[in-house]
Amino acid sequence: MVKILVIHGPNLDLLGKRENEIYGDETIDAINRDIKKAVGAKAKIEFYQSNHEGDIVDVINRTKASGILINPAAYTHTSVAIHDALKAKNLPSVEIHLSNIYAREEFRHKSLIAPVVTGQISGFGKDSYILGVKALLTIIGGGRDA
Amino acid sequence: MVKILVIHGPNLDLLGKRENEIYGDETIDAINRDIKKAVGAKAKIEFYQSNHEGDIVDVINRTKASGILINPAAYTHTSVAIHDALKAKNLPSVEIHLSNIYAREEFRHKSLIAPVVTGQISGFGKDSYILGVKALLTIIGGGRDA
Amino acid sequence: MVKILVIHGPNLDLLGKRENEIYGDETIDAINRDIKKAVGAKAKIEFYQSNHEGDIVDVINRTKASGILINPAAYTHTSVAIHDALKAKNLPSVEIHLSNIYAREEFRHKSLIAPVVTGQISGFGKDSYILGVKALLTIIGGGRDA
Amino acid sequence: MVKILVIHGPNLDLLGKRENEIYGDETIDAINRDIKKAVGAKAKIEFYQSNHEGDIVDVINRTKASGILINPAAYTHTSVAIHDALKAKNLPSVEIHLSNIYAREEFRHKSLIAPVVTGQISGFGKDSYILGVKALLTIIGGGRDA
Amino acid sequence: MVKILVIHGPNLDLLGKRENEIYGDETIDAINRDIKKAVGAKAKIEFYQSNHEGDIVDVINRTKASGILINPAAYTHTSVAIHDALKAKNLPSVEIHLSNIYAREEFRHKSLIAPVVTGQISGFGKDSYILGVKALLTIIGGGRDA
Amino acid sequence: MVKILVIHGPNLDLLGKRENEIYGDETIDAINRDIKKAVGAKAKIEFYQSNHEGDIVDVINRTKASGILINPAAYTHTSVAIHDALKAKNLPSVEIHLSNIYAREEFRHKSLIAPVVTGQISGFGKDSYILGVKALLTIIGGGRDA
Amino acid sequence: MVKILVIHGPNLDLLGKRENEIYGDETIDAINRDIKKAVGAKAKIEFYQSNHEGDIVDVINRTKASGILINPAAYTHTSVAIHDALKAKNLPSVEIHLSNIYAREEFRHKSLIAPVVTGQISGFGKDSYILGVKALLTIIGGGRDA
Amino acid sequence: MVKILVIHGPNLDLLGKRENEIYGDETIDAINRDIKKAVGAKAKIEFYQSNHEGDIVDVINRTKASGILINPAAYTHTSVAIHDALKAKNLPSVEIHLSNIYAREEFRHKSLIAPVVTGQISGFGKDSYILGVKALLTIIGGGRDA
Amino acid sequence: MVKILVIHGPNLDLLGKRENEIYGDETIDAINRDIKKAVGAKAKIEFYQSNHEGDIVDVINRTKASGILINPAAYTHTSVAIHDALKAKNLPSVEIHLSNIYAREEFRHKSLIAPVVTGQISGFGKDSYILGVKALLTIIGGGRDA
Amino acid sequence: MVKILVIHGPNLDLLGKRENEIYGDETIDAINRDIKKAVGAKAKIEFYQSNHEGDIVDVINRTKASGILINPAAYTHTSVAIHDALKAKNLPSVEIHLSNIYAREEFRHKSLIAPVVTGQISGFGKDSYILGVKALLTIIGGGRDA
Amino acid sequence: MVKILVIHGPNLDLLGKRENEIYGDETIDAINRDIKKAVGAKAKIEFYQSNHEGDIVDVINRTKASGILINPAAYTHTSVAIHDALKAKNLPSVEIHLSNIYAREEFRHKSLIAPVVTGQISGFGKDSYILGVKALLTIIGGGRDA
Amino acid sequence: MVKILVIHGPNLDLLGKRENEIYGDETIDAINRDIKKAVGAKAKIEFYQSNHEGDIVDVINRTKASGILINPAAYTHTSVAIHDALKAKNLPSVEIHLSNIYAREEFRHKSLIAPVVTGQISGFGKDSYILGVKALLTIIGGGRDA
Repeated sequence: MVKILVIHGPNLDLLGKRENEIYGDETIDAINRDIKKAVGAKAKIEFYQSNHEGDIVDVINRTKASGILINPAAYTHTSVAIHDALKAKNLPSVEIHLSNIYAREEFRHKSLIAPVVTGQISGFGKDSYILGVKALLTIIGGGRDA
Repeated sequence: MVKILVIHGPNLDLLGKRENEIYGDETIDAINRDIKKAVGAKAKIEFYQSNHEGDIVDVINRTKASGILINPAAYTHTSVAIHDALKAKNLPSVEIHLSNIYAREEFRHKSLIAPVVTGQISGFGKDSYILGVKALLTIIGGGRDA
Repeated sequence: MVKILVIHGPNLDLLGKRENEIYGDETIDAINRDIKKAVGAKAKIEFYQSNHEGDIVDVINRTKASGILINPAAYTHTSVAIHDALKAKNLPSVEIHLSNIYAREEFRHKSLIAPVVTGQISGFGKDSYILGVKALLTIIGGGRDA
Repeated sequence: MVKILVIHGPNLDLLGKRENEIYGDETIDAINRDIKKAVGAKAKIEFYQSNHEGDIVDVINRTKASGILINPAAYTHTSVAIHDALKAKNLPSVEIHLSNIYAREEFRHKSLIAPVVTGQISGFGKDSYILGVKALLTIIGGGRDA
Repeated sequence: MVKILVIHGPNLDLLGKRENEIYGDETIDAINRDIKKAVGAKAKIEFYQSNHEGDIVDVINRTKASGILINPAAYTHTSVAIHDALKAKNLPSVEIHLSNIYAREEFRHKSLIAPVVTGQISGFGKDSYILGVKALLTIIGGGRDA
Repeated sequence: MVKILVIHGPNLDLLGKRENEIYGDETIDAINRDIKKAVGAKAKIEFYQSNHEGDIVDVINRTKASGILINPAAYTHTSVAIHDALKAKNLPSVEIHLSNIYAREEFRHKSLIAPVVTGQISGFGKDSYILGVKALLTIIGGGRDA
Repeated sequence: MVKILVIHGPNLDLLGKRENEIYGDETIDAINRDIKKAVGAKAKIEFYQSNHEGDIVDVINRTKASGILINPAAYTHTSVAIHDALKAKNLPSVEIHLSNIYAREEFRHKSLIAPVVTGQISGFGKDSYILGVKALLTIIGGGRDA
Repeated sequence: MVKILVIHGPNLDLLGKRENEIYGDETIDAINRDIKKAVGAKAKIEFYQSNHEGDIVDVINRTKASGILINPAAYTHTSVAIHDALKAKNLPSVEIHLSNIYAREEFRHKSLIAPVVTGQISGFGKDSYILGVKALLTIIGGGRDA
Repeated sequence: MVKILVIHGPNLDLLGKRENEIYGDETIDAINRDIKKAVGAKAKIEFYQSNHEGDIVDVINRTKASGILINPAAYTHTSVAIHDALKAKNLPSVEIHLSNIYAREEFRHKSLIAPVVTGQISGFGKDSYILGVKALLTIIGGGRDA
Repeated sequence: MVKILVIHGPNLDLLGKRENEIYGDETIDAINRDIKKAVGAKAKIEFYQSNHEGDIVDVINRTKASGILINPAAYTHTSVAIHDALKAKNLPSVEIHLSNIYAREEFRHKSLIAPVVTGQISGFGKDSYILGVKALLTIIGGGRDA
Repeated sequence: MVKILVIHGPNLDLLGKRENEIYGDETIDAINRDIKKAVGAKAKIEFYQSNHEGDIVDVINRTKASGILINPAAYTHTSVAIHDALKAKNLPSVEIHLSNIYAREEFRHKSLIAPVVTGQISGFGKDSYILGVKALLTIIGGGRDA
Repeated sequence: MVKILVIHGPNLDLLGKRENEIYGDETIDAINRDIKKAVGAKAKIEFYQSNHEGDIVDVINRTKASGILINPAAYTHTSVAIHDALKAKNLPSVEIHLSNIYAREEFRHKSLIAPVVTGQISGFGKDSYILGVKALLTIIGGGRDA
């Protein structure tokens, strides 16, 4: 059966609790439930949140999933280690962002992750996750070769 | 009734005819049909393709649509005029790219359009359009405030 | 008799209709009337607005005017073609901007047009046009050698 | 009654005496007389020239004028102190230049003053002052909110 | 029979009429006649001049020629759209410039077109066209693989 | 009662043991004692040292303190994750450095943390901590609004 | 007896009179009184305010103080002369800023003064002075070797 | 007895399992055996692999080894914390890379680690480790002063 | 009689022997024969190849030729000395490149030689020489003033 | 009779009193005496020292000297105003530095003054003045046209 | 039999005679003897030292060796010609440096040679040569594919 | 007896023969005679001119002179090899330029030689040599320690 790994990067444990005007009102649990609902019976989903760059590298290296949905948050802009992990793993993968990172501070415009994922989605709040997981299912299902 | 404007930027009249290894095999007409199918009865869609920056500015300024889906293609990287038109129009809007622009030449990494749209989707081939139009419908329908 | 060409660049057809907090409340027609009134019998004025870079180059190349007043808007920052057209035409010319472009986003601080005009006026709203056309008349009249 | 402060920056005491091919033939006294004539009874004018950055900051901080017309000359490109003084004073203000600074050496293209004035006029020789003082009167008179 | 498309970019309609010290004395019609004479019976030539970036993209996308000779003029330095059109068309192509662009202003040193043409010729005035069309014939004729 | 979280970043476990000419002779325990003494009965202090970026993010996200005193050490220059954590937490916070980071290598001059703290103190050795905790108490006590 | 020179840079004569949302409500006289109170009998203080870079250099060169507390304000970012004066004088010295200069405009992030002082304190409003003078006393008193 | 710490950075747990065309066919265990064989009785070796920047800092800070051989992998380009740890530890140390980092992507050309190690070896695949450990033994043995 | 100096820069002694996919199959002798054939009786040609920057400067300084055809190869990007020699000699001169240097590595895009030659031709393989020598003959013959 | 103006810039009043390892042991008075001795009866010399940029501009604008010898010290790197004053004055002029500014901090490598003087001498300690004044006398005397 | 070319770049004739604190105490002859001893019967070695960039290109182009060991010294940072020669020759090759170039001046951090060699070794003094020649032998012997 | 080595860099064999408006009218022989005359019996002078970077390195490495006067000409801006040679030789040395290199093209403003010489003199035509050799004599004579 298809298995998807959903990775929430640093500070996303705070979702729905702070800076709601940027990141929206829903908690990470609510978002996870919505992702599950959107995917339904099409795949099994494993959720993972960590504030540790090394943890995220670990989980990518060890996963047995068929595809990865990742919101790298702050590590988007600083992590060559996650870039290397995703590149080595070479799975279909989608990078998502809640906010439109290109409409924020200059240092958020550059993603070190984007060159090694299949595609990137940013700016749709919680829907970035929903759109991303659907895109991922299509790719895994052969709708598009990564 | 909800009306959506879909803008295809320069050289997209060639889709499915050249550089298929980058942009995929389907023609612009096939893609338009797929967008229509995905939207169904939820909205009326107006398609527009032009190789002229000025034409794209014209059509944005004059449209009566409730939302804009735009693949600015080459003008992504050079057009302040389209940036200004989208900013002034201030509609829900989604920028999409067939290829993952962040995995290509350096000069394609910077989008002048991204700061003024609601969100950006890149790298999913034809599916970038499908994901984009769905995101747009949600935003227009109040699923997310732009 | 003295003839002046007034060029309004891209998106200025929207004047007075959107982003009034930046560009002011008056429409382009109202501004044109005010320019006419300010000039009175001293010159004949030809007005031109286009969202197309090529159109603006065409009109500069073909004009029989004695001087050019231009608000290049978005093309201020991207058009070598208009730069070349003005340089080749070599008429007295004034570049104006409604807003103070130096108090806005970084990418609006650099004008590709400024090096080839006689002078530049920015930040006075509608009055930028009025001041500009008066300056132009003085130059054409010999008050200052371009 | 309306009072205007006219500030001439460093080396402008030399006007009409050297480099006339760049700055024109008239002395600073002649220019001051022309400004006075242009303003007529509409305002009282206080003229100030100094080669000292600190003096210019002093005079801005202490003035009781309703508006400031400033040709910052060389300090245009180097003075954060004058920038801060004008920003703190928060009066209607106009920056002017005799020559078109954007058609000269690269280091003259960047103005540290422009972001904190109402508007900027450059390239019209002596007329830059005349246009500037008229623009200032309009702003002070309510013709435009600074 | 071999067919060649010759594209003259923006402001080249002015050739021989202005800035002759830079671009030479001959008009575009005289140059076209000379190109024709140089080619003789070896190929049919289609001439095209436009000040519109979009027009040039259109004509490249639609041409049935076996090779393209292009003087992109101002668009040399700003057009990703023409870059993309030439890259997608993938025909033998030669970029030419009348003046030596590397001996002029800094902003003329960078060509966005050069990476996607077979070769580039600059600095020989009208002869740039003649040398270019001969080079193009050789490439089309198999003298060199593009 | 007021509670303060004191965070010592990477390599600060070595304080007083190596590079004493840069960082001083006292150990982290001695410094903690001095901080405690300086604060006295005014607040409860929680000390935390880690070489892990993720740990520091964790502790910021979970703390119940009323203010944060942080010496981010090496992460000063590379951590967007800590920046985001402090920004989201939105508590009164003070960034301190033992050495004068502006008098050292170029790469130590830029702090990613500084834009999201209340204030920064650097260069006073152990006293940077003492000054910082006093400043923090004043802010928390209402002596200054953050 | 210990003597401290307190230097207030350009525009600080306006403290408490303008831009209070950035710089706070207290006047320079009030701040000076508070500094005096904080120092008490431990040192004699000489206060100096000037908008002139040269004056500040003069006063540093001639002072007989044992330490310098300086808020260089706008000259922070532009004055090599004050940098050289402090470096040559080689006294214990503290640079302070009322606002957090690292949370403001890009051009305020770089201090030319910081590399030649003992330490820097920014962002604590009036308290930056109080913290600074205390730090200075400790250094002069031998609490820390500069 | 001489003791050497061998540190394998992030993603090196994948050696021999992925991207073999870049990193070679051998697993980390095979490499460790080869290092051991090369060193023989000359030293005791402690191997350490982690994907966590903080772990690597920890192990450097706590080691009792006489020298360090480190392949910092992705952290080569982003870790000031490991730079600081090595600098503070001040042991003979060798940085190695399997691939020639100077023949790869631009962002891999800059090493933050190189300035604080004795020497660097890159591009010899598994042999980089063997050469590195021999170099380290020579340095520790006094063959060269670090 | 007209005399032309043909200079082949460093590594061109290897032509046709290595990297033929970039530089083509013909040897330097074959190319020289083709240049001779193309020129016929119109000029005498002197061929010169050297891997030494100084030799190339020597030969330019001493030549009695009426024009110079130069393929500076690697020295294109690094030699101010050849730039100065050509500038001082002030003869009609053509810079040629076998490959399209603008479609190769970034460091090959900048020519230090281009600003001081009459024109530049790149990308036509062996034909770059043939086109170049013909252009040179035209210039020397007065077909174009250098 | 020939008259020379010698200008000593900011902090040079400290010569021989501080940082002697960089600037040498002699006071400004001793240097002035040596300059006088070197010039002898060939010219009258006026000495001027100021820490004020404006003062230096004043003295240049007003001087009746036939040539200027200037050590701009810190203003070398920051003063467009002195640049403009020397350019407008257009006298033979020599810029000198005691230390070799190109062997010091990066920010001292760029002189804003150098482009507008006849020549520059740096690195010879007190002898820079002596060499400079002799060079100036030769230029004034017609030995070289400025 | 295997033959190795050892190239010593500019100024290495001075080894052991000057700047011994950077480059060590041994002369180039002593180093050559040590290389010979390390290689023993495994290969024949040809030594070459030159201060001329062109000589080094010559010797690379003409060598019949099976591998190249090069210390490019100063030409590391400036020679595209040696880069091109090594790239065209396409032999196993090792770049070595006596000192750790990444711990020295900024301009020594960038190697133009590194992208075209098999590997690079820097910082081990004389041992850099010994390690390098051993690495080279392994590569030639098939121990690693270049 | 004191011996001085005078090095003339590339293209200086052309002095007095070309570009006299920049470099003056005198030949290198005339200049050498003048240097000799200026030095008189105080030193023996060895003159050397070469267009070869390697030759200049050779001559510096081998000279037995007590001081070096060098006009590196084009190699000023490109030669790390000459930089290294002068640094290793560590003799009193003076860099001179005929023209004011800071008033010419941007690429001539940066000297790679300046950081390793005692001092630099530029802009005095032939007199730069005369002033330079006198400065050198003073330094050698102990008038100033290098």
